[in-house]
Amino acid sequence: MSSTVEYDNQVVTRGDLKYQGKAKQVYLTNNSEILWVHYMDQATALNGKVHEDIPEKGRLNSAISHILFQYLTRHGIENHYLTAISETDELDLALDIIPIEVVTRNYASGHFVSKFDATSMQKLNPIVQEFYYKSDALDDPFMNDSQILALGYATEIELEKLRNYAQKVNQLLKSLFDEIKINLIDFKLEFGKNALGELILADELSPDNMRLVDQKTGKSLDKDVFRQHSGDVTIGYRDVLSRLENLEK
Amino acid sequence: MSSTVEYDNQVVTRGDLKYQGKAKQVYLTNNSEILWVHYMDQATALNGKVHEDIPEKGRLNSAISHILFQYLTRHGIENHYLTAISETDELDLALDIIPIEVVTRNYASGHFVSKFDATSMQKLNPIVQEFYYKSDALDDPFMNDSQILALGYATEIELEKLRNYAQKVNQLLKSLFDEIKINLIDFKLEFGKNALGELILADELSPDNMRLVDQKTGKSLDKDVFRQHSGDVTIGYRDVLSRLENLEK
Ligand SMILES: Nc1ncnc2c1ncn2[C@@H]1O[C@H](COP(=O)(O)OP(=O)(O)OP(=O)(O)O)[C@@H](O)[C@H]1O
Ligand SMILES: Nc1ncnc2c1ncn2[C@@H]1O[C@H](COP(=O)(O)OP(=O)(O)OP(=O)(O)O)[C@@H](O)[C@H]1O
Ligand SMILES: [Mg+2]
Ligand SMILES: [Mg+2]
Repeated sequence: MSSTVEYDNQVVTRGDLKYQGKAKQVYLTNNSEILWVHYMDQATALNGKVHEDIPEKGRLNSAISHILFQYLTRHGIENHYLTAISETDELDLALDIIPIEVVTRNYASGHFVSKFDATSMQKLNPIVQEFYYKSDALDDPFMNDSQILALGYATEIELEKLRNYAQKVNQLLKSLFDEIKINLIDFKLEFGKNALGELILADELSPDNMRLVDQKTGKSLDKDVFRQHSGDVTIGYRDVLSRLENLEK
Repeated sequence: MSSTVEYDNQVVTRGDLKYQGKAKQVYLTNNSEILWVHYMDQATALNGKVHEDIPEKGRLNSAISHILFQYLTRHGIENHYLTAISETDELDLALDIIPIEVVTRNYASGHFVSKFDATSMQKLNPIVQEFYYKSDALDDPFMNDSQILALGYATEIELEKLRNYAQKVNQLLKSLFDEIKINLIDFKLEFGKNALGELILADELSPDNMRLVDQKTGKSLDKDVFRQHSGDVTIGYRDVLSRLENLEK
């Protein structure tokens, strides 16, 4: 595709690759406040140890992420999403990503089940929020507040903001997915700071980073299908996308 | 030794072994509110995978624990310790132990260093507090508040009490060890509920459950000597005990 687009009456030109991720490529642009993000047809599991090409995944994740970011924007949740520029590419606000991943769990699944011998899919009350330190070298260790504060990875005020932010996002996404008969089991958020130092929701909102289960059949519509080698992962993603699109109409 | 002692104008008789731990044997007595605890000459590491007989360790831990519990009692910290009945045995309040171990860290050491690539012995500010779920089968997993609440292992009020309790114990122990030129690096506490449901400090306060470092030489005076096979662990324990005894005089 062309490496130049128009956005907000400016010409935005794709520049150097800033970051080659496991699911996305992040490019600089001629505007230091804007990133050009490309969703790839690729999936990894076990922190990159398993790796596979998955045709269409980039388009599906990109489309789902756009709908969800726009939905959050309409409900007052600031985020980095600016505009889609192709089926797989978007412009985002360039942020300084903070090294804390925020996981929210409405139901027990994945690590939560194996680590604590919890009942799979048991409803969690209160909702569980977890912080992980973003570090490939350390395998994204799980941390509590006092550890994060002592190591200076975030301040107390920031942790409180992250918790509130994640809680609002959870309420909104839960009710949206409920309308399309899907249970939001858990999800991971990333945040970054803008030039003013404000925390803003970043990264992606797709079945790569959340667990989604069909309320009627109990089937996984997310990356667990890939993690567990239980079939074509894009079937679920396509289902999620089409339900979201029908809702928008 | 005799299996009968006098305590508080009652005859206390040792009964069945209630629990065979890795460091202590816990016996029931003829009084359901009193346990008879025997400190063994034994050490384990890596959750019991390494195991060794260590003559005198029981006597040393028992003596250190008594001094520390009595010191805490004098400073208004309620705890389970009732009386020593021999060099290795004591009577304790029988409590319903809650399944949460509370770790306090003043300086980075052990797992904290390896998990987060922290600088060994770096001063932690704020002080780090960690909760672990007591479960041999699950290898005592580290948990945050929301996980503990969602799984019902403790209430929010209890967690707040544990935090405050541990913080007070830390202040007191830190200043005591400071007087004998020892840095209190970190330590683990256990708590139980009495018949009224009140949380009370339990278990032991010994170099098996805390890291102690000589301020002058930087040498370990605790179980790390055993964990790291770096010599006779009782040399440090004896040193700690004699410094505490000299202080008491
Ligand atoms: N608005 C933003 N500004 C700057 N960086 C961002 C923004 N949104 C997301 N990112 C970062 O861009 C990268 C997206 O790529 P991808 O999702 O493929 O990463 P990843 O392989 O999951 O690796 P990581 O462990 O870094 O998340 C991530 O590092 C993410 O933190
Ligand atoms: N006041 C008390 N009332 C009841 N139980 C107690 C009390 N104080 C300590 N205990 C329990 O007694 C046992 C002490 O034995 P020991 O320290 O050898 O256990 P351990 O091998 O460390 O195992 P654990 O994983 O159970 O702590 C522990 O299970 C501890 O929780
Ligand atoms: Mg990612
Ligand atoms: Mg013990």
